[in-house]
Amino acid sequence: MIAELWGQPIKAVNLGNKDFYEDLVSQGVEAIHLDWKPVANGEHALIAALDLLDSDPKVARANQTALERINAAQTFLIDIQPALEAIPGMTADTILHAGPPITWERMSGPVRGAVCGGLIFEGRATTYEEAEALVLSGKVHFSPCNEHSAVGPMAGVITPSMPVFVVENRSQGNRSFSTLNEGLGKVLRFGAYGDEVLTRLAWMRDVLAPALKKALAQSEGIDIKSIAAQALHMGDEVHNRNKAATSLLIRELIPLLLEADIPTQERIEVVRFINSNDHFFLNLSMASAKATLAAAEGIEGCSIVTVLCRNGTDFGIQVSGLPGRWFTGPAGDVKGLLFPGFTEADKNPDLGDSAITETLGLGGFSMAASIAIVQFVGGEPKDALVYSRKMYRITEGSSSTYSIPMLDFRGSPTGIDIRKVIETGILPQINTGIAHREAGIGQVGAGLVTPPWECFSEALLALAQAQS
Amino acid sequence: MIAELWGQPIKAVNLGNKDFYEDLVSQGVEAIHLDWKPVANGEHALIAALDLLDSDPKVARANQTALERINAAQTFLIDIQPALEAIPGMTADTILHAGPPITWERMSGPVRGAVCGGLIFEGRATTYEEAEALVLSGKVHFSPCNEHSAVGPMAGVITPSMPVFVVENRSQGNRSFSTLNEGLGKVLRFGAYGDEVLTRLAWMRDVLAPALKKALAQSEGIDIKSIAAQALHMGDEVHNRNKAATSLLIRELIPLLLEADIPTQERIEVVRFINSNDHFFLNLSMASAKATLAAAEGIEGCSIVTVLCRNGTDFGIQVSGLPGRWFTGPAGDVKGLLFPGFTEADKNPDLGDSAITETLGLGGFSMAASIAIVQFVGGEPKDALVYSRKMYRITEGSSSTYSIPMLDFRGSPTGIDIRKVIETGILPQINTGIAHREAGIGQVGAGLVTPPWECFSEALLALAQAQS
Repeated sequence: MIAELWGQPIKAVNLGNKDFYEDLVSQGVEAIHLDWKPVANGEHALIAALDLLDSDPKVARANQTALERINAAQTFLIDIQPALEAIPGMTADTILHAGPPITWERMSGPVRGAVCGGLIFEGRATTYEEAEALVLSGKVHFSPCNEHSAVGPMAGVITPSMPVFVVENRSQGNRSFSTLNEGLGKVLRFGAYGDEVLTRLAWMRDVLAPALKKALAQSEGIDIKSIAAQALHMGDEVHNRNKAATSLLIRELIPLLLEADIPTQERIEVVRFINSNDHFFLNLSMASAKATLAAAEGIEGCSIVTVLCRNGTDFGIQVSGLPGRWFTGPAGDVKGLLFPGFTEADKNPDLGDSAITETLGLGGFSMAASIAIVQFVGGEPKDALVYSRKMYRITEGSSSTYSIPMLDFRGSPTGIDIRKVIETGILPQINTGIAHREAGIGQVGAGLVTPPWECFSEALLALAQAQS
Repeated sequence: MIAELWGQPIKAVNLGNKDFYEDLVSQGVEAIHLDWKPVANGEHALIAALDLLDSDPKVARANQTALERINAAQTFLIDIQPALEAIPGMTADTILHAGPPITWERMSGPVRGAVCGGLIFEGRATTYEEAEALVLSGKVHFSPCNEHSAVGPMAGVITPSMPVFVVENRSQGNRSFSTLNEGLGKVLRFGAYGDEVLTRLAWMRDVLAPALKKALAQSEGIDIKSIAAQALHMGDEVHNRNKAATSLLIRELIPLLLEADIPTQERIEVVRFINSNDHFFLNLSMASAKATLAAAEGIEGCSIVTVLCRNGTDFGIQVSGLPGRWFTGPAGDVKGLLFPGFTEADKNPDLGDSAITETLGLGGFSMAASIAIVQFVGGEPKDALVYSRKMYRITEGSSSTYSIPMLDFRGSPTGIDIRKVIETGILPQINTGIAHREAGIGQVGAGLVTPPWECFSEALLALAQAQS
């Protein structure tokens, strides 16, 4: 029998390392490659941690509780307030930023640009150099937005007098905060800090925010979750495509703006400003996701991710069962489409708190709802379906509210489980804008990225240790 | 050899009539059914007409010209005017209606309801009975909207003092007209004519139309084609789903409404009215399609369809090479989803000029852009892809502006060629609302329908005769 077998032509099925397969094919051998990886990358400590967590019924129950809280969230935009007034732990000397904690020394260009722009906006410096000197003098306290129930896109800089959206999660009573979106081009969040940027920020503080505050005072709050859910049926994934959600938000705001006591010219300016920016909803999508996920924090034994974020240097995650602890790794290189005139060398590493949308199962996780976004981040329509389908393999379940028409209206993949990420080796799929690596320039493109593996492997080991 | 063949088990491939296949399968025979039909239903006269038209290079050139004119269209909403003032051939005694010509005797319930409602609106009667008597006295002149560059959804009734949108096709200089959408529920276009309906129509004439006219006077016109093209990337097919297009239209109108000299309370009423109706864009989508297709009428030898419409009794089509001639057949039964409380017996046959959107390659032809619509008209997401893909088999080409993300951004199927309809036996796919068959009730559901075969077979024979 064996002799007979060896007498036949070789037909190979290759598992794992693709090199063997390619060698065979190059020698004209018929071969099939199976894209298989050993569980947990074959690392014994991770397998042991998985075994421990998988055998503990408390973990499964905790994850179910987390998913229930996420699905139960009811997020409403209720007010606009100055950051100093609204955000817990905010002080006159504090500057909040995106991602996990970081020092000035390790900050990337766009975050430094936004920090210095923020200090100029606050009147504490008049130039980048003065602002930098102030930082180096130790008089500025940096803190991650996510440690204050806040989120900010890209650099994510929030200074004390900036107006912030106040979003309330009515199922748990918690609140979240985010800045108002400035638009595209030269904007603070991408590290620009010129006159154009500062003038716009002052107008947003002095005209936009008071007008929207008066408008919101006419209502019981605007249902952000409902807008995001509708937008998922209208081609948005509410991270990098927000055109439908922004339109629906405008439809909610307009009657309120008309009824509020706002000077006519200011009302026109406000409407034109929001109308000109299809990304205006992004910051609300983020705040809504934050308010939703914060309600699932601190459940003992829970292996669900509650934060994915980046500061342009490090990627950081938090896990429900280990509240407040950061697990970090290097921020990745975003692959995508660059605006004309920019090259790969211009790209800053991955940046921003906006991956809170993916943490909730939107953004990259819901790209199958947003086929048109491939024109912005690269790839083909079928890729968008593949990304979404894959994410169900690393999530606890699916959303009871957000659904994806092209996947037969299946709920979006929700509740990233670090156990499943480690077991399958599938990393969360994020889509994102790309900032120029130098301060003062702005956005250079958009694309796709995943977090580093070590965020999840370290979190898994820590969770297993806490449970053992 | 033959003997050997007969000795084997039968394996059948069945062509055409499925009964034979089903008989074999029921007897346990392995069989494959191929859904094949003979060309032109096997009718010799049609095959001869196809041969004649296919061998005439003028027809191919004419169709190319038609597609070019359709693709070149630039449609702008430029004004709102009373129908009597705006619409060519409109008189004080004229009532326009949807579909091909029809007499009162053959009119279906909802069209009669809308006609009588229109006469009450005009002050020519105070009850349905009075209005009917006026019609029977011969003092009312009926004419199809489509014979006056106009279109109306469902009953499509346009009376002299109703305000109409004026849409200009700037590539050819022609204009089209449609009423303003009343919203859902009890509305004139579905045959309701109660106080609620008449009060709303009066408000639309006295408040809505003047406000929108003043708003439009602030602009160079609103680009309707651009809005429809964007909406196709946002889950609309701009026939039965117009949520994104209505939102984008509101975004265009709001700054104009704010700048126009309109009393504050009226401005608020106008915004609330448009905002409350996700179908508000429908009538503009229709007028834009009409202005586009009218530019392709009257090209000698052209076999492209320029009108698909229904009056609730008859389905009518027009073909470019035979301008002004109607080819009709019985209006079909719409298969779909009924609103709670209604049954199949309540349904009126197919009704309305709104299939002008399908004539342009939108609506049912672009359902692959509007997956979420299956929740409204029935079916599954994959059906929407199938409908759109199939329509490329009966169209001259594809749109250079309207594109479908899920089909790799392919242009929507455009320019229905009656030759291809007859050759393949594939009828245009239309999605549509369903009216109650009695006057005075309103909409009972939505679904899918196709035109009758004879519209196309008769048009083909007539076109061949004209060319021979």
